Amino acid sequence: MSIVLGSNQYGKSENRVFRVYRDTARHEIRDLNVSSALRGRFDDAHVTGDQSAVLPTDTQKNTIFAFAKQHGVGAIEDFALALADHFINQTPAAEGARVEVEEYHWDRIQVDGTGHDHSFVRGGSGTRNTVVNVDGSGSDRRAHVVSGISDLTIAKTTGSEFQGFLTDEYTTLPETDDRILATALVARWRYDGTDIAWDKSFDDIKATLLQRFAEIHSHALQESLYGMGATVLEQHPEVAEIRFSAPNKHHFLVDLSPFGTENPGEVFIAADRPYGLIETTVTRDDATDPGSAWHAVPGFC
Amino acid sequence: MSIVLGSNQYGKSENRVFRVYRDTARHEIRDLNVSSALRGRFDDAHVTGDQSAVLPTDTQKNTIFAFAKQHGVGAIEDFALALADHFINQTPAAEGARVEVEEYHWDRIQVDGTGHDHSFVRGGSGTRNTVVNVDGSGSDRRAHVVSGISDLTIAKTTGSEFQGFLTDEYTTLPETDDRILATALVARWRYDGTDIAWDKSFDDIKATLLQRFAEIHSHALQESLYGMGATVLEQHPEVAEIRFSAPNKHHFLVDLSPFGTENPGEVFIAADRPYGLIETTVTRDDATDPGSAWHAVPGFC
Amino acid sequence: MSIVLGSNQYGKSENRVFRVYRDTARHEIRDLNVSSALRGRFDDAHVTGDQSAVLPTDTQKNTIFAFAKQHGVGAIEDFALALADHFINQTPAAEGARVEVEEYHWDRIQVDGTGHDHSFVRGGSGTRNTVVNVDGSGSDRRAHVVSGISDLTIAKTTGSEFQGFLTDEYTTLPETDDRILATALVARWRYDGTDIAWDKSFDDIKATLLQRFAEIHSHALQESLYGMGATVLEQHPEVAEIRFSAPNKHHFLVDLSPFGTENPGEVFIAADRPYGLIETTVTRDDATDPGSAWHAVPGFC
Amino acid sequence: MSIVLGSNQYGKSENRVFRVYRDTARHEIRDLNVSSALRGRFDDAHVTGDQSAVLPTDTQKNTIFAFAKQHGVGAIEDFALALADHFINQTPAAEGARVEVEEYHWDRIQVDGTGHDHSFVRGGSGTRNTVVNVDGSGSDRRAHVVSGISDLTIAKTTGSEFQGFLTDEYTTLPETDDRILATALVARWRYDGTDIAWDKSFDDIKATLLQRFAEIHSHALQESLYGMGATVLEQHPEVAEIRFSAPNKHHFLVDLSPFGTENPGEVFIAADRPYGLIETTVTRDDATDPGSAWHAVPGFC
Repeated sequence: MSIVLGSNQYGKSENRVFRVYRDTARHEIRDLNVSSALRGRFDDAHVTGDQSAVLPTDTQKNTIFAFAKQHGVGAIEDFALALADHFINQTPAAEGARVEVEEYHWDRIQVDGTGHDHSFVRGGSGTRNTVVNVDGSGSDRRAHVVSGISDLTIAKTTGSEFQGFLTDEYTTLPETDDRILATALVARWRYDGTDIAWDKSFDDIKATLLQRFAEIHSHALQESLYGMGATVLEQHPEVAEIRFSAPNKHHFLVDLSPFGTENPGEVFIAADRPYGLIETTVTRDDATDPGSAWHAVPGFC
Repeated sequence: MSIVLGSNQYGKSENRVFRVYRDTARHEIRDLNVSSALRGRFDDAHVTGDQSAVLPTDTQKNTIFAFAKQHGVGAIEDFALALADHFINQTPAAEGARVEVEEYHWDRIQVDGTGHDHSFVRGGSGTRNTVVNVDGSGSDRRAHVVSGISDLTIAKTTGSEFQGFLTDEYTTLPETDDRILATALVARWRYDGTDIAWDKSFDDIKATLLQRFAEIHSHALQESLYGMGATVLEQHPEVAEIRFSAPNKHHFLVDLSPFGTENPGEVFIAADRPYGLIETTVTRDDATDPGSAWHAVPGFC
Repeated sequence: MSIVLGSNQYGKSENRVFRVYRDTARHEIRDLNVSSALRGRFDDAHVTGDQSAVLPTDTQKNTIFAFAKQHGVGAIEDFALALADHFINQTPAAEGARVEVEEYHWDRIQVDGTGHDHSFVRGGSGTRNTVVNVDGSGSDRRAHVVSGISDLTIAKTTGSEFQGFLTDEYTTLPETDDRILATALVARWRYDGTDIAWDKSFDDIKATLLQRFAEIHSHALQESLYGMGATVLEQHPEVAEIRFSAPNKHHFLVDLSPFGTENPGEVFIAADRPYGLIETTVTRDDATDPGSAWHAVPGFC
Repeated sequence: MSIVLGSNQYGKSENRVFRVYRDTARHEIRDLNVSSALRGRFDDAHVTGDQSAVLPTDTQKNTIFAFAKQHGVGAIEDFALALADHFINQTPAAEGARVEVEEYHWDRIQVDGTGHDHSFVRGGSGTRNTVVNVDGSGSDRRAHVVSGISDLTIAKTTGSEFQGFLTDEYTTLPETDDRILATALVARWRYDGTDIAWDKSFDDIKATLLQRFAEIHSHALQESLYGMGATVLEQHPEVAEIRFSAPNKHHFLVDLSPFGTENPGEVFIAADRPYGLIETTVTRDDATDPGSAWHAVPGFC
């Protein structure tokens, strides 16, 4: 028996890149949080302390900011792919690279009904993100893109039941045919290939998730998620699978009867903890092999 | 010399009230975080342990949820005023009451271009809030309303300078005639009186703050804030004064020259700490006496 | 009527100073979070944009780090006083300065039973802090020190009642003669003068607060706080008053009777929101005038 | 091609169990955060909305609190295993169960030098946790235990180098033979089997991690982590592998030369973002098959 190094990766996390395009008086901005990581044959760095194979995380940081100018920031998926390929090519010991990007949404400030040229307000619902994993380079290169949205907080105030469930001696929950269903949705979907209209695909999938959540009469959060995912797969052949992590944010009906007041589904307390947590994958029976696509994807691996 | 009780208050904080109006198939929702506090002659509760003058915080909680049905939730200022008056009337030892409300913004989910009847997505920019302080009751009653917005994250990518400042032996900052100006604005304004169209006043003030931030050519965050506040006072006679707490969220230009790349105001790193913090009041030279209006207003007292 | 500038201050917040003393092989460390702010005659900076009276927050930052070497970091109160005086002296328009310091606690790592020379682990209970306000300089100088501790999470599992309280039509809470009492205590006390053995005073007050919380049979959190504060004042003539902000962190007894199980005070659920919040001052009937001592003290003004 | 359900699990997260043992006047407490999840054949719940195979998350919550009394809370690993086995046995469709437990540390409050019977203060360094995954039941049962510690914030002020690294055109970092090394360590280790003295094993491993961090002269955080893990494996045959996630919390030396002041390793700024992130596994070349041991282990899957 001997002790050995197992799987490992290292990189620079949470580089807050703010990119301004100011070629005309009407500025454009991209506001990103970028994290990089390399994996591969870094045994010496760990075992003997020899760092000669290690591209420092400080260099990774420099590269991320330099690329924001040299390569430019278009769709976050393209930016992440360019960085991942670059890092593998710069680092002989690297067998794979992972680049994660979050993008924060800004709107133009309205001035007398018109969006201002260079003033912005942050907002919107949900945060767009991507995790790119690239293995190898040249003819062996395989690139994986998992994109998604986090913190998409949604609720429906009727059209949600929960009944007919399994019971045991610890069950006290009454059945209900009308409850509030609310979650702070995290959804991540794996793309087949990288020749994708990233921005349009994201916008369409987000709109579909919202619309289907609204439309589906829900017997459980599981059914809502499955239906939302199935529609995404039906409409998006470029998506191989979609995964959800959805806290069931409980809204409990408050008992107002001690005060002589009825409460027919009108006053709720929004609870913090504990919360249900539903994690679900919707996929295709002939889905492509994910390879390392889900490597180090927060909450989904 | 003897030891005595000084100022004190007690209450129930962060009651998460979710109110659904379902009189028709087109539901309306109000999503609130409500905190109450009473102050007054509660010496016995502290000194001897006698709680006979104390309306329990649990009762305050019950009342908040019951009022969401019995009184209803319109503008948060009205809801807070009703609660504050009620608590003073219920509690003989109470000389004053403070009720704080935050309201979370939800939009209808779009389904084929139309807002859905009972499905919602949380979002928007900034969080509306109010702090109401009421002293006394009956003919001695005096009510104070301080409303505001928090976490209104805004940025302008030009039209901002910082130069001509005082220097000393610890100064290294170069002057600049073009920098990014960004903040996560907290603004709170004190109303004169309570006969106000609360929702319209809030919407107008928020729009004015955004528009003026965009329009003002800034020599410092202080100048932007003053100008924003002055316009609010000019346009809103119902506002006695407005206060700002504004972190100067630094965006530092990244030096790309080591990589042979120019960076003419295009790539920035968004920094976390330290940050500048600018706190400013814009008022009227004949402003009414604030009384207890700013009592226990977070960040502004 | 005209619009004018009201109260204002500006500075650099959350400078994370890590100071190593390495004069011998046995290093000492101080780990601080320092925030500065100046107030005074800064009208031009706001109204006309003229910054000539403004010592930049960047200079304040430089000074804080330079002072960590030039002045050294002993007790946080002395460090804050030195900075406040310096800032007032450097800035003719400044009428007052505020310096807040938090200090994070580190212990030496134990190696074979001995504290290591240069390796440390962060921990402990509660975070020590101070807020210093200085008005003026020279013969007009007045210095105020409010020190304290935050996040001191404490609980007692018996010796706590809550009964005999005021009731109304919204009261449902049963009386109890045995409950869990728990809080995440924030305590801040105002010193008379500045010729104080700061470190010893802090250590003694913290120990007293803990001991009295344990000893006092509590009829309400208010009574515990009052008793804790009174003992601090009795034992510490250098303390003029002490203030508490104490969330009543509810631990609700879980009803296990549906499962045929008794629960005589053994299984509780620790709740998040809502929570009671008790804010109390214990003072002396001949306490000195606080002046600006509580200016901008978070949670206590 | 057809759309199908993929991997899934559901449960109740963050049940805050506070357990008091009060058999004698000297109380004992255990303060836990417990999350459960079931995985298996739950297709109907997703696809048709039929919940008849689903043990509700509310029932899981009830069970967790009931078990705190019926089973009792000893080592968190035993508590988690009992719950996981129970949930699989109660739920025919469940093929596996996952139970995660965090435990918060409390010390007795000192009263005149003696630990008090029923009063406690929360503190310590790092948070103990475990993730238990059980597959199947009866003769097919396989149980996995991954225990660990999070938020163990450690620093050494010398004995740390970083030089001899790979460079490219984006490298600007100077080499150093003396820097601060600091991290907020997360370590998780996989046990072989479940017949373990859990509390003693945890205490010993924590002490070893701290001691080795102190002792190892570090050429990079990777080398420190590898050395720490190797010693754990050498001393603990019950541990199959250990994994680390360690942010490199940068402490940058502040340039005081503009102020005529030298800074020989004495004044640092503790930075927030970006940070290096080092993730490493130390294992045995004959380690047992992990099976589902790392299933849904936060940050390590």
